[in-house]
Amino acid sequence: MKRIKLVVAYDGTNYCGWQLQPGMPTIELMLNNALSELLKEDINVIGASRTDSGVHALGNVAVFDTNSAIPAEKICFAVNQRLPEDIRVQSSVEVEPFFHPRRVKSKKTYEYRIYNRKIEIPTQRLYSNFIYYDLDIAKMQEAANYLVGEHDFKSFCSVKTQALDTVRTIYRIDINRIEDMIYIKITGNGFLYNMVRIIAGTLIEVGRGAYPPEKIIEILKGSDRNLAGPTALARGLTLISIEYENDYSF
Amino acid sequence: MKRIKLVVAYDGTNYCGWQLQPGMPTIELMLNNALSELLKEDINVIGASRTDSGVHALGNVAVFDTNSAIPAEKICFAVNQRLPEDIRVQSSVEVEPFFHPRRVKSKKTYEYRIYNRKIEIPTQRLYSNFIYYDLDIAKMQEAANYLVGEHDFKSFCSVKTQALDTVRTIYRIDINRIEDMIYIKITGNGFLYNMVRIIAGTLIEVGRGAYPPEKIIEILKGSDRNLAGPTALARGLTLISIEYENDYSF
Repeated sequence: MKRIKLVVAYDGTNYCGWQLQPGMPTIELMLNNALSELLKEDINVIGASRTDSGVHALGNVAVFDTNSAIPAEKICFAVNQRLPEDIRVQSSVEVEPFFHPRRVKSKKTYEYRIYNRKIEIPTQRLYSNFIYYDLDIAKMQEAANYLVGEHDFKSFCSVKTQALDTVRTIYRIDINRIEDMIYIKITGNGFLYNMVRIIAGTLIEVGRGAYPPEKIIEILKGSDRNLAGPTALARGLTLISIEYENDYSF
Repeated sequence: MKRIKLVVAYDGTNYCGWQLQPGMPTIELMLNNALSELLKEDINVIGASRTDSGVHALGNVAVFDTNSAIPAEKICFAVNQRLPEDIRVQSSVEVEPFFHPRRVKSKKTYEYRIYNRKIEIPTQRLYSNFIYYDLDIAKMQEAANYLVGEHDFKSFCSVKTQALDTVRTIYRIDINRIEDMIYIKITGNGFLYNMVRIIAGTLIEVGRGAYPPEKIIEILKGSDRNLAGPTALARGLTLISIEYENDYSF
């Protein structure tokens, strides 16, 4: 028996998120089906990040155990031939059998994209949140800086969360504009349910002038979801990468 | 009666191209329906470029005549509310009544995108042609330079064309790579049926080493579609802009 780690990219548009849900198309279901068919075993992947419906990924991580004799590095090419075109495994490597993608410390990086111009361009619509009003990205960066560090992010977490501990560390948030696209890149040791989308929604409120940047201090202190801005649209969010302290490869 | 010029952007993924075809979803049909509903007249647009099924646009051009009192500049915002989200009119201006988008001289710019890496990234798949083998872009540029100028492009035109005159002028072709994406940008005074896709398909053959760059001279001379490379996938192609010598605005 060996444990295989996959790096998985997907277009979340047509899926009800990562996690298995009875009768619904999810990324986890597609991976389980394609791997089970390929390896002729009953495969159940364990995912690192259970992304929401409509959220995309360049580098989500999953592991599974197998008795197959197929070399670990070849699995990604073979499984891609059995996956729909909106899911592609980027790599497959053997890892230590104790490696669990959610229990081992990691640094996750997400990108939230805002397409900011007067009229939408349809070819950008699936991978960004279109906003026609002006956004002040200097103010958004100023607000974002208050979020960096270790904080209780209860105000930036869906009330539907099951997390008891809402303290997380954000290492950095960088906001850049290239032509009409605004990129919010955020790296942390973990994110609560809807946390990146609520941060994006709150920074948009700051960008349009509805909140002053310092309001972030108040929102953090209040520990109340109602104080933060709305949850920004899922289609603007992409999980870029998950880095582990050690690569645990075998 | 006034003539209105529209600049139209669309995601061609879900359409059978620009041109009306009985019972099929096309960009022209969607524009006619939305404009007729908005202006309460029977509107029939005339398009500048009848893009193929699956081809995208940032700036196709269309005109139509109307008796409506709605100010020309407001039409784009009003019609966008009646269009599906994969079509967006970027601007609407009144033009001289004799302005015809296919009969007036213009410079058209297309971009063909090739996503060139070992494994596909799903969020790029709808707007680029994925190629996993190595491409030598210096050789592709060398080949492209033979196409610049006035030539008979019969070899680079679908045999299904109705064009009698196959002479066209290409002003420039620029090939650039930014990370894993290769951009072929091509500007000319007009393009034959499938011409940009056949040029892209032929440059890909050069890039992978199947043809030497000089083979372009032979292909042009031969005036035979069978000499050129295959027609590259539609999804990689975007009509970027159409510039007219004069803006003909009223």
